[in-house]
Amino acid sequence: MALLTRIRGPRDLDRLTPAQLASLAEEIRGFLVEEVSKTGGHLGPNLGVVELTIAMHRVFDSPRDRILFDTGHQSYVHKLLTGRQDFSRLKMKGGLSGYPSRAESEHDVIENSHASTVLGYADGLAKANKIQGHKDRPVVAVIGDGALTGGMAWEALNNIADAKDLPVVIVVNDNERSYSPTIGGLANHLSTLRTTQGYERFLSWGKDALQRTPVVGQAMFDTLHGAKKGLKDFIAPQGMFEDLGLKYIGPIDGHDLVALESAFTKARGFGGPVIVHCITEKGRGYHAAENNDEDRFHAVGVIHPDTGLPVKSSGKDWTSVFGEEMVALGRERKDIVAITAAMLHPVGLAPFAKAYPDRIFDVGIAEQHAAVSAAGLATNGLHPVVAVYATFLNRAYDQVLMDVALHKLGVTFVLDRAGVTGTDGASHNGMWDMSILQTVPGLRLAAPRDADQVRAQLREAVEVHDAPTVVRYSKGTVGPAVPAVGRVGGMDVLRGDAEEPADVLIVSVGALAPTCLETAELLAVQGISSTVVDPRWVKPVDPALPGLAARHRVVVTVEDNGRAGGVGSAVAQALRDAGVDLPLRDFGIPQEFLDHASRGEILAQIGLTAPDIAAKVSTLVAKLDAEPVRA
Amino acid sequence: MALLTRIRGPRDLDRLTPAQLASLAEEIRGFLVEEVSKTGGHLGPNLGVVELTIAMHRVFDSPRDRILFDTGHQSYVHKLLTGRQDFSRLKMKGGLSGYPSRAESEHDVIENSHASTVLGYADGLAKANKIQGHKDRPVVAVIGDGALTGGMAWEALNNIADAKDLPVVIVVNDNERSYSPTIGGLANHLSTLRTTQGYERFLSWGKDALQRTPVVGQAMFDTLHGAKKGLKDFIAPQGMFEDLGLKYIGPIDGHDLVALESAFTKARGFGGPVIVHCITEKGRGYHAAENNDEDRFHAVGVIHPDTGLPVKSSGKDWTSVFGEEMVALGRERKDIVAITAAMLHPVGLAPFAKAYPDRIFDVGIAEQHAAVSAAGLATNGLHPVVAVYATFLNRAYDQVLMDVALHKLGVTFVLDRAGVTGTDGASHNGMWDMSILQTVPGLRLAAPRDADQVRAQLREAVEVHDAPTVVRYSKGTVGPAVPAVGRVGGMDVLRGDAEEPADVLIVSVGALAPTCLETAELLAVQGISSTVVDPRWVKPVDPALPGLAARHRVVVTVEDNGRAGGVGSAVAQALRDAGVDLPLRDFGIPQEFLDHASRGEILAQIGLTAPDIAAKVSTLVAKLDAEPVRA
Repeated sequence: MALLTRIRGPRDLDRLTPAQLASLAEEIRGFLVEEVSKTGGHLGPNLGVVELTIAMHRVFDSPRDRILFDTGHQSYVHKLLTGRQDFSRLKMKGGLSGYPSRAESEHDVIENSHASTVLGYADGLAKANKIQGHKDRPVVAVIGDGALTGGMAWEALNNIADAKDLPVVIVVNDNERSYSPTIGGLANHLSTLRTTQGYERFLSWGKDALQRTPVVGQAMFDTLHGAKKGLKDFIAPQGMFEDLGLKYIGPIDGHDLVALESAFTKARGFGGPVIVHCITEKGRGYHAAENNDEDRFHAVGVIHPDTGLPVKSSGKDWTSVFGEEMVALGRERKDIVAITAAMLHPVGLAPFAKAYPDRIFDVGIAEQHAAVSAAGLATNGLHPVVAVYATFLNRAYDQVLMDVALHKLGVTFVLDRAGVTGTDGASHNGMWDMSILQTVPGLRLAAPRDADQVRAQLREAVEVHDAPTVVRYSKGTVGPAVPAVGRVGGMDVLRGDAEEPADVLIVSVGALAPTCLETAELLAVQGISSTVVDPRWVKPVDPALPGLAARHRVVVTVEDNGRAGGVGSAVAQALRDAGVDLPLRDFGIPQEFLDHASRGEILAQIGLTAPDIAAKVSTLVAKLDAEPVRA
Repeated sequence: MALLTRIRGPRDLDRLTPAQLASLAEEIRGFLVEEVSKTGGHLGPNLGVVELTIAMHRVFDSPRDRILFDTGHQSYVHKLLTGRQDFSRLKMKGGLSGYPSRAESEHDVIENSHASTVLGYADGLAKANKIQGHKDRPVVAVIGDGALTGGMAWEALNNIADAKDLPVVIVVNDNERSYSPTIGGLANHLSTLRTTQGYERFLSWGKDALQRTPVVGQAMFDTLHGAKKGLKDFIAPQGMFEDLGLKYIGPIDGHDLVALESAFTKARGFGGPVIVHCITEKGRGYHAAENNDEDRFHAVGVIHPDTGLPVKSSGKDWTSVFGEEMVALGRERKDIVAITAAMLHPVGLAPFAKAYPDRIFDVGIAEQHAAVSAAGLATNGLHPVVAVYATFLNRAYDQVLMDVALHKLGVTFVLDRAGVTGTDGASHNGMWDMSILQTVPGLRLAAPRDADQVRAQLREAVEVHDAPTVVRYSKGTVGPAVPAVGRVGGMDVLRGDAEEPADVLIVSVGALAPTCLETAELLAVQGISSTVVDPRWVKPVDPALPGLAARHRVVVTVEDNGRAGGVGSAVAQALRDAGVDLPLRDFGIPQEFLDHASRGEILAQIGLTAPDIAAKVSTLVAKLDAEPVRA
């Protein structure tokens, strides 16, 4: 690490020779493989942007020139070049964030990890520069080809193209894949650009190939080109971007430092919006990644650096329970189709895709389209299952509401990584869904507590044909089964006798059932009796809940979701509406952005543990005992 | 109306001669001007699609072939051709909906009026057709050029382009404007297509112009064409769409029935995704509309059919109060910029745009981009004010949350048409914002009760530089000022003495202040005393509220917003957190989609009136009086 350790900031790159820059790139690759293997993190994407990031920091003057990374998991190299080289606690509490972080560095601007936002930021920053008289300061936005499939990117492109005098440099990091290989018309178009490699290369290739072997050459020509286009388009196939009014430079070999610097220098001098199209290889230089076709080590846990194999294997996770049940359901019901937004593997739909290739749709990083396309499929009588990370459904709130629910269509949304996820930081916690979905008329929402319930509730969900249904579960390993000891209405009783009065009714939501049962134990030690009930379907509130609550002195709700407008609020409202005016305490995630740390650390920090809940409940019960009798 | 009244369904068009079809078009225009003048409605857009709609229904076989309208306010002609010719109660309770409605006709598929969704539906419907063995059934999607600026449209185009064997016919209804003239790179591209008018016309024009006056001809050529493109692109300038893999037919004169039928017939036979680019004129055939450059009578109230002038003028509306204050603010603070999503006039920003043309940004129908671009502007120290209809902010929930709030940026969102709007139907009621925005950490939300409060709270909002702020108000005429009689914390006391105990605390939100005061009067008649308080800022809950509540026996909240997770729930949670366990009743909009009717009719129907609220509250108080004393 002779060179890397001497880089304290971007300007330290200025005095390096071409040979030293090449060595630095090698050092960085070695560093990333070794360090990220130990901590887990986004390995593949960062191996792909080593040269790209070095070249950007040589040509542009950060932070005066703003360098923005879309879906910031490709910012590790940027971190290394801007004074952050201690990766030992990457994504851990107190360590470096897995994304850009303004608290870490003045070189970081955007810390959101939701995709496709960077061009919108760039548009705003450049407009502000102009108003403030800094029209010469370029704004550089790095965006992957996958993120370009997101509608926000289009909205921004459309605006940037209209502002002809704003120096926005759009660096398209094209590795042909978002998480999975990028799909869609845009991907095909980029693929054409990529294959043709620009005018100069075409000429030399043309001399070799076309003239020597005219038949093969012509066939290649036709294949690459389609029948409709003329020679000019083939040589400079920047059509789409230029039609929008954007200058296009490329394609550039994203691992060629000289070519990159030359392209960026040209772009910097242009004075208007310009696209620099760079072809990179995800996982570049790491054998285990390059040979992994699935996702080229997009994000890894702790792995062995040589083999790329996980150091420890974990138990069965929520995702694969869902994935297996989908295969079974697909066999039984031909009307079931599945939709993913560029995350076939992470959401567990790969087995379904393999079994039923005609019934899986990968729409790209396009949650809005996932929901509306599902509405179209359902209108014609199919039952779509849309599987996304809980936090990403936020993108499709309006579509779930207006296009699915208003139209009374049977679409099932499966939300993975719901609740506190932890190490990916604030924007990956799935703490919004159970609140915003409360507002959707007719929608039914299930929070299964264990693997059996995932299977059972998924099956119940796909039986609903006139309303959206949602099944949401946590990240990681699913715990042991939590058996029901009774039933009241549609709810499972997990402890106590629903017919008998008790002091406290604990309403347990999803994976927090063990926490609730432990809370009940702790209360019992203090002489406070509890009933624990899992409503299974938390929206709508079970009609039997108010009657059950009325046999208790206190109601407690426990959910792995933001407290504002969550299940606790819905239960409280249902009790009010039924005239059951009991003291209620709702436990959940405080409505704040949570810094990255492990799930356990965060749950402890926010008091979502049995001892914390039990302490607060026993205080309330003691207060009620001591309270003067009121009229 | 000799012809129109004989059209009971689309197939009745088959036997009409060309001359009869032209007469029918004239009859329809006359019908629309006369009828919509009486009821109000979307006049301009429908005058523009008369021939387009006739031609579609002649070539395609609805409902077997699905005909879908984006932002369905352009479906009046479609209604006339599918058996619905009684427009006397358009948009009124019990009358025809202003949008497609599945309850009205089997020819209607989408009833959502949020823009840019139609291509997503088309994608899903076509995929379902294929799975179900009906690959020959075309799906026809009509979308305006404005709606193409929405990100969802791009996401869908990208997917449709990838499905080469699905017969999706995309009819681009290009009138150069969404609500206002369409902006952005795409608009410029469409403008090029429009101007060049295709190969055939080019040839005849070329013969005339280029050969006869080579200098002028060349200048025109360069102007139209830019310097970079070759002749082929100029003649068949379908670049962008073909680059995505979409076949392009056009541009077609959208008022030429023969050309339209020919293009649709060609498109129908193509067997894959195809764009038919039609040039139409909004307000066509109606002199008053054609001469109105602002929005060509996009949506009108009741007007005089000859002049197009409003039949009655109303008092000052919420929108113009905001618009005027923005002009004043813009004069005082150079850092204030404004953003609209294609609705400059409807949201009241036209005066600001006129006064400060460098500080207004119209981003197109692109609420996501409005929010993120604002985040970029705020990152560089400006203070953006984003003005949208309340219901359309749903599109930007994730961006408000992740791009503005997570980044602690000072962006002000002004939500017009919040609460029950009425006649535009379910998807235009602004009943979601105060619920979903409760989940956004740090966000501050104001609900001004009168014009003075709009001005004051807007000014308070733009003073916040480290968090998003929201100011939301109703549609229509603003009522008289509601004076405060006291103050407690940051809250205005509207009735009673905050220091004195009373039976009921009424928490009044926004424009419902008069309703709350009337409720207090009705309760007083029954001997029940009330304090009425307007928190002004409803998020966060004022810290003084729990203490104030504790001096009462019952708390009542009244809001013009969906009940689920709304202000009532937030107040209830704040009281619980403070250990104030009082009976509370929250009044708001039931969490259901509301059929179109007047605002007054809807408020009566859902019980959001003083007599209804007072009756429920007095019942609760009576119950508390009668209740046995409990421990």
